[in-house]
Amino acid sequence: MKIFAYGIRDDEKPSLEEWKAINPEIEVDYTQDLLTSETAKLAKGADSVVVYQQLDYNRDSLAALADVGVTNLSLRNVGTDNIDFDAAREFKFNISNVPVYSPNAIAEHSMIQLARLFRQTKELDAKVAEHNLRWAPTIGREMRMQTVGIIGTGHIGRVAINILKGFGAKVIAYDKYPNAELMSEGLYVDTLDELYAQADAVSLYVPGLPENYHLIDAEAIGKMKDGVVIVNTARGNLIDVDAIIAGLNSGKISGFGMDVYENEVGLFNEDWTNRDFPDEKIADLIARKNVLVTPHTAFYTTKAVSEMVQQSFDAAVVFGKGEKPETFVEY
Amino acid sequence: MKIFAYGIRDDEKPSLEEWKAINPEIEVDYTQDLLTSETAKLAKGADSVVVYQQLDYNRDSLAALADVGVTNLSLRNVGTDNIDFDAAREFKFNISNVPVYSPNAIAEHSMIQLARLFRQTKELDAKVAEHNLRWAPTIGREMRMQTVGIIGTGHIGRVAINILKGFGAKVIAYDKYPNAELMSEGLYVDTLDELYAQADAVSLYVPGLPENYHLIDAEAIGKMKDGVVIVNTARGNLIDVDAIIAGLNSGKISGFGMDVYENEVGLFNEDWTNRDFPDEKIADLIARKNVLVTPHTAFYTTKAVSEMVQQSFDAAVVFGKGEKPETFVEY
Repeated sequence: MKIFAYGIRDDEKPSLEEWKAINPEIEVDYTQDLLTSETAKLAKGADSVVVYQQLDYNRDSLAALADVGVTNLSLRNVGTDNIDFDAAREFKFNISNVPVYSPNAIAEHSMIQLARLFRQTKELDAKVAEHNLRWAPTIGREMRMQTVGIIGTGHIGRVAINILKGFGAKVIAYDKYPNAELMSEGLYVDTLDELYAQADAVSLYVPGLPENYHLIDAEAIGKMKDGVVIVNTARGNLIDVDAIIAGLNSGKISGFGMDVYENEVGLFNEDWTNRDFPDEKIADLIARKNVLVTPHTAFYTTKAVSEMVQQSFDAAVVFGKGEKPETFVEY
Repeated sequence: MKIFAYGIRDDEKPSLEEWKAINPEIEVDYTQDLLTSETAKLAKGADSVVVYQQLDYNRDSLAALADVGVTNLSLRNVGTDNIDFDAAREFKFNISNVPVYSPNAIAEHSMIQLARLFRQTKELDAKVAEHNLRWAPTIGREMRMQTVGIIGTGHIGRVAINILKGFGAKVIAYDKYPNAELMSEGLYVDTLDELYAQADAVSLYVPGLPENYHLIDAEAIGKMKDGVVIVNTARGNLIDVDAIIAGLNSGKISGFGMDVYENEVGLFNEDWTNRDFPDEKIADLIARKNVLVTPHTAFYTTKAVSEMVQQSFDAAVVFGKGEKPETFVEY
């Protein structure tokens, strides 16, 4: 059996080599190029291709792939929005993805950023960098003294709760669909208003569904405690960034951590070092001492990448055998 | 009863006001000035003074204080090395300190820095600051995937272990005097060599006793895993900084967090912004992307400061009643 992979990055190679070592019977070839109508021919002779790209899987690319006889497409990531499903249907593509790679990658990042905001590490690091080694007035707040409100208690939210328990923080949580175990621990409050009223920090772990659009807006922030810390590693559209900036300006919000942004496509994962930065709000946030911006990197750990590689190659093999992997995408 | 306090910083005032509110019968007066032979007279009429300073409590200051009738000295910190004990004995000073203010302050800081080093946050933050929003190759490692070696399992080490458990990391520990509970959990290894061989990260929580001098030297580092992360929030003399720099240069050490330094007196808690920085090694470490230097600030949290204020003022009251506080210093 032969698998061809597109867009392999350097950081994926160790995981790929590992996978090859435990699957010596599978022939694997790859390129760092993305899948296009041009590069599709590289896959000729393969049983499945493994892919991961922001670039569209458009009709031309899919047609070119089908043309060299490959209709098994295994995505190394979760998102399928950039696939032309009409074309995929026409050429009878079988598609799989990697829906869960590492909840810990995201939960850990959110809690590290939360702890850093309470600790004022950005301010302190900046002082140290310019050789100002005076500690006052850059004082920290301890995690164990905080009540942290977790909105959304799926896989990632629950890992975050375990981390908070390790720190000795008080956890309160809200979810429309409560988890039975957390329920028995008495962690849930009945309403978001209760959570806002009690929480020293709020961290988000809910999907970016229309009903959650701008969940954190001026009204919600108004219900929160003065000096609240807010962290969003979930979805950009959960937050009204204008309301956050107003809250930071007034001092209502004492710290903000963001890994996602509703206008991040075309902005994040690009190098703007020597170009005009196109988003004033994000430039403003990046420059603030009490804000930590990361460009959608919460997921980006060696463990997550390894899971993405292994699960996608495993699915490609299942496709190659003419079977349906567990991560088959119905469309 | 009257208490006079020296060297009160702005960040201590909220805690002081809180203490006054629950002790309305005590008259409290204070200055931001430190205790010297000049300022000693400000304490006239007080039953006890509360102090905290790196400046020496020398014969002149103590004599001047005794001269206005005050011989109860309550330190807001733990260290007593800067007291002239011969003079203190001569003037019959009663002295107390605050030996434990917040183990969590230090344990949390050490684990936040450890997590940051695995996550490459300094590198990523620097990229974001210059508007490079590409994530690769700045990939993180997850805490849950690491084996962390804890050397010293007193109050602070044990809090660090709880934090690590929350992250889901594997903990191994070494202590000459094992803790019974941790023993029953099977966390201890028998020798430091075993700990070095297994640990992806090593964090220190032992006292700066002569027997621990340069515990982490070239030989110890040589026994550690390639790419080890080392954090020291305990005492500066535990580490041979030259060996650390060599390990960073060779890549043997992938990250280093230091909050203490054996030559920190006169260097830390000073502002060198517009002056020649006097320590090349520390300047070198501060400039590295995989090193986090903080100037002995691990202790510096609102909770710790509040404990230091409350415990020292409580002890001053006990002295004022002619009794011995629990934190009495025998000398």
